[in-house]
Amino acid sequence: MQLNDIDINTYPNSEKIYIDGTLYPIKVGMRKINLTPTVKIENGEKVFYPNDPVIVNDTSGVFTDPAVEVDINEGIPRLRTEWIKARGDVEEQDGISSEYGKMRLNDPALDSIRFKNHYNPLKAKEGKEITQMAYAKAGIITAEMEYVAIRENLNNKELGIDSYITPDFVRQEIAAGRAIIPANINHPEAEPMIIGRAFSVKLNTNIGNSALSSGIKEEVEKAMWSCYWGGDTLMDLSTGKNIHETREWIIRNCPVPMGTVPIYQALEKVDGNVKKLSWEIYRDTLIEQCEQGVDYFTIHAGVLKEHARLVGERLTGCVSRGGSIMTEWCVIHDEESFLYTHFDEICEILAKYDVAVSLGDGMRPGSIHDANDRAQFLELDVLGELTLKAWKHNVQVIIEGPGHVPMQKIRENMDKQLSACHEAPFYTLGPLTTDIAPGYDHITSAIGAAQIAWLGTAMICYVTPKEHLSLPDREDVRNGVIAYKIAAHAADLAKGFPGANVRDDAMSKARFEFRWKDQFNLSLDPSRARQYYVESRGSDDKFCTMCGPNFCAMRITQKISDEICK
Amino acid sequence: MQLNDIDINTYPNSEKIYIDGTLYPIKVGMRKINLTPTVKIENGEKVFYPNDPVIVNDTSGVFTDPAVEVDINEGIPRLRTEWIKARGDVEEQDGISSEYGKMRLNDPALDSIRFKNHYNPLKAKEGKEITQMAYAKAGIITAEMEYVAIRENLNNKELGIDSYITPDFVRQEIAAGRAIIPANINHPEAEPMIIGRAFSVKLNTNIGNSALSSGIKEEVEKAMWSCYWGGDTLMDLSTGKNIHETREWIIRNCPVPMGTVPIYQALEKVDGNVKKLSWEIYRDTLIEQCEQGVDYFTIHAGVLKEHARLVGERLTGCVSRGGSIMTEWCVIHDEESFLYTHFDEICEILAKYDVAVSLGDGMRPGSIHDANDRAQFLELDVLGELTLKAWKHNVQVIIEGPGHVPMQKIRENMDKQLSACHEAPFYTLGPLTTDIAPGYDHITSAIGAAQIAWLGTAMICYVTPKEHLSLPDREDVRNGVIAYKIAAHAADLAKGFPGANVRDDAMSKARFEFRWKDQFNLSLDPSRARQYYVESRGSDDKFCTMCGPNFCAMRITQKISDEICK
Repeated sequence: MQLNDIDINTYPNSEKIYIDGTLYPIKVGMRKINLTPTVKIENGEKVFYPNDPVIVNDTSGVFTDPAVEVDINEGIPRLRTEWIKARGDVEEQDGISSEYGKMRLNDPALDSIRFKNHYNPLKAKEGKEITQMAYAKAGIITAEMEYVAIRENLNNKELGIDSYITPDFVRQEIAAGRAIIPANINHPEAEPMIIGRAFSVKLNTNIGNSALSSGIKEEVEKAMWSCYWGGDTLMDLSTGKNIHETREWIIRNCPVPMGTVPIYQALEKVDGNVKKLSWEIYRDTLIEQCEQGVDYFTIHAGVLKEHARLVGERLTGCVSRGGSIMTEWCVIHDEESFLYTHFDEICEILAKYDVAVSLGDGMRPGSIHDANDRAQFLELDVLGELTLKAWKHNVQVIIEGPGHVPMQKIRENMDKQLSACHEAPFYTLGPLTTDIAPGYDHITSAIGAAQIAWLGTAMICYVTPKEHLSLPDREDVRNGVIAYKIAAHAADLAKGFPGANVRDDAMSKARFEFRWKDQFNLSLDPSRARQYYVESRGSDDKFCTMCGPNFCAMRITQKISDEICK
Repeated sequence: MQLNDIDINTYPNSEKIYIDGTLYPIKVGMRKINLTPTVKIENGEKVFYPNDPVIVNDTSGVFTDPAVEVDINEGIPRLRTEWIKARGDVEEQDGISSEYGKMRLNDPALDSIRFKNHYNPLKAKEGKEITQMAYAKAGIITAEMEYVAIRENLNNKELGIDSYITPDFVRQEIAAGRAIIPANINHPEAEPMIIGRAFSVKLNTNIGNSALSSGIKEEVEKAMWSCYWGGDTLMDLSTGKNIHETREWIIRNCPVPMGTVPIYQALEKVDGNVKKLSWEIYRDTLIEQCEQGVDYFTIHAGVLKEHARLVGERLTGCVSRGGSIMTEWCVIHDEESFLYTHFDEICEILAKYDVAVSLGDGMRPGSIHDANDRAQFLELDVLGELTLKAWKHNVQVIIEGPGHVPMQKIRENMDKQLSACHEAPFYTLGPLTTDIAPGYDHITSAIGAAQIAWLGTAMICYVTPKEHLSLPDREDVRNGVIAYKIAAHAADLAKGFPGANVRDDAMSKARFEFRWKDQFNLSLDPSRARQYYVESRGSDDKFCTMCGPNFCAMRITQKISDEICK
């Protein structure tokens, strides 16, 4: 299995750079876009004025480092292994311990699809607290914290912008629960990143095969593809065959934190029969995935038995898969959700691997009609209660949010989340601001995502054009990621995030000076920008095909400035 | 020349309907989307519950009425001719009166491209005030006012929503200058529509050939194409050859109001030499276009000589074509702009045909960096002064706005526009909320457009994916229009515009009940929604390919509701 479709040459005139840590021997990968000089004619001679390079975040890891030969059969380098071991508070297990994991490992029929390198899982030593939150509360700045601090600064040091994000500020935010670094000790391949409203807005992408389509190779390639375009984290929502093996392939090649919804796999294990779901099966699934290296779990522990009756008041009921599964379980068994009753045990397990919990919003509105209703906000209060519980175990927490919300109701979501959930980071799906545009829901939702991120949401979950209709293909993933890169960046600008405007200003300067190649290279999707330009290019570089030579406003303005105004 | 590419069958299960006026013998065209019934199993039998049809605005005029045979060589029916003549205050001229128009008419070389039907232009009788604003101030409700009142209500009467928009409310808004009906008496083909913040948000599309590309046939087809997808008005920004003849073809076939920027054609007449531009040439161009039937003119009369020096302070100078032309003219001649000094005469001309003025923002910011700067807001104050001047002549006014604006600066634009321009309707291009996504600027700008429209902008001018790169093709126009239909509708929802949620609720109900065909038919782009679904469809209608049969939240919820919760 080779990864043929990622072309590391598609970020032209840029290079992978690494910034060294000062507290730890770490190297933080970023991308430096080099620009051409500005050319002016002075006294009849061409004079060249250099333009500063622009440094941008790079979520593609070693896949875009020409100095690293990636073989996905081997997996990517295990960046964090030494950092983790150096802390002396984890120990390598003799082997995997989940029943299901052992069964899969011992099944010779799976040999052909199994990832070949086996690593014994790490786990906290007895009595040790090994989560980033535990360290942060203890006043310890970890290598991961320094890593994300460097990563959040980008151009700031070079440009003399003095509002640096310091490693200790990162620590404080994590200690307060306002930010998380999802970093399972068994996923050392991931480059640390931070989710919190004091930092740049992040975007999550979803991949996953369902029973109907997709295979292992496609899933791995899709995962790398979304990282390539800019996905900061990745959720594997697979519900089909060979979930366990597919996940192993992805994690061993995944340069970003990966999340899952464990209830999906638990349900597969009981052949889709909700009645047969149990805490024991779920617990084994958690351990299986903790040992593989999943960085955060969506857990719909806020869906309570008493919420079931509220579903009937809605236009679109319960649209969360995990939420509807748990609702059905509660109703069938006439019992409280085992995710809620066993939440302390869940946290105890997660704390041993530093897996973060993403508290799922099982009652998120699935339509404009149901936005901000009783079911949604009652659940949010429960999520707030569970947040405090998780923090007692030093488990890092993020809170999932809607969904479908008209613009005038977006702020209420953000305000209520902050107060009900004690400022734990908010992580929203869109929200979609209208229901009437299937085929274009990356747009209906980018409108809502930009707004809610501006107001304080820390991470936005992308939506592709195929939402509500079918599974996204490769091109849909690209379109979804770019739409969300736009939303996240627009929010960073609006928040006044330090240095966010550097890339915009460089782009606009290039535009004004007709440096077309720099415009392509600075854009979120250089190949598409170039393609559109080239397809209809005229013979003169100094105007595009939009206005014609006599009507180009920028050209006229340059003439005015050059001749008269200076 | 035949229009082959518009398929009136692509709005499946819908029909053109006409609502009768009560004050006037008018028929208002709309589209009724019929829905399939909800099917329930009760006592082992299928029971059918009908779903109300949904009525939506239809900007495609007779092109989508199967009862009308359209031949674009003949032009579409002249809907308003009788209404206009019935008022008895206009008279038919002996022939066209602009010098340029006469020259083109008498040039036999143009016979082959000339629209064959010639109509003598209408003009106000001496001493008569014939603009919609003049009527409104005089307390007269016109047929156009009743037409738009009916059009703004859509489903409200049928659904018993009692916040009707009455014809007299329309009149009051127009009298106050808070809304306009762009309706040149020489463009009787257009179906009246209203632009104002008390009404549904409208969207404008731009077409236009430049010197480099496109021909008459393509432009006419592009115009019809944008109306088909939902453009409420249309601006012809052509700067190439045969502008006069192209425009005639478009107007005679155009079911929506059409705008132009007359300075473009005036500049063509002097071979692109700004120095040779003069009031006389511009004036003749205004008359030429008034007589053809242009409904609104963008006039950059707010760009003053003293503004030229402010351009130098900007990152991207002046990005408005009209603005940069006038700035250059002022600098070359060292004189105040003739658009400003002759503004009263301009209004006198426009008032005779009821052409509205769209005061151009020559100093709109072309980058995030330049947003809300001194040049922009100084010009806005001048536009406010010109608004009052135009209103004295009873000329209807809208105000053009930016451009590139980060989200946190959008509200200031809206607030300042309302106060500086005395609540004249705002008409903005986007705004784009970041500069870094060429190839995706329909998305960067839909994010801004949705917000500014929610805050009070009456009409948003679409941006296509090709913005900044090249001219849009047919598919780009479709993508741009749909992105802006989304933004406008999201704003209508957020404003609480009466009845706006009817289509969303119908869509969501269809979604919850797995009525897939109704979902397609209710969507803004039915053919794309269906295409995405069909491409990956499974064998069972009751789940899509996203989640698989065991994981469909809606299916599970229905089961819960059906079996337990009721």
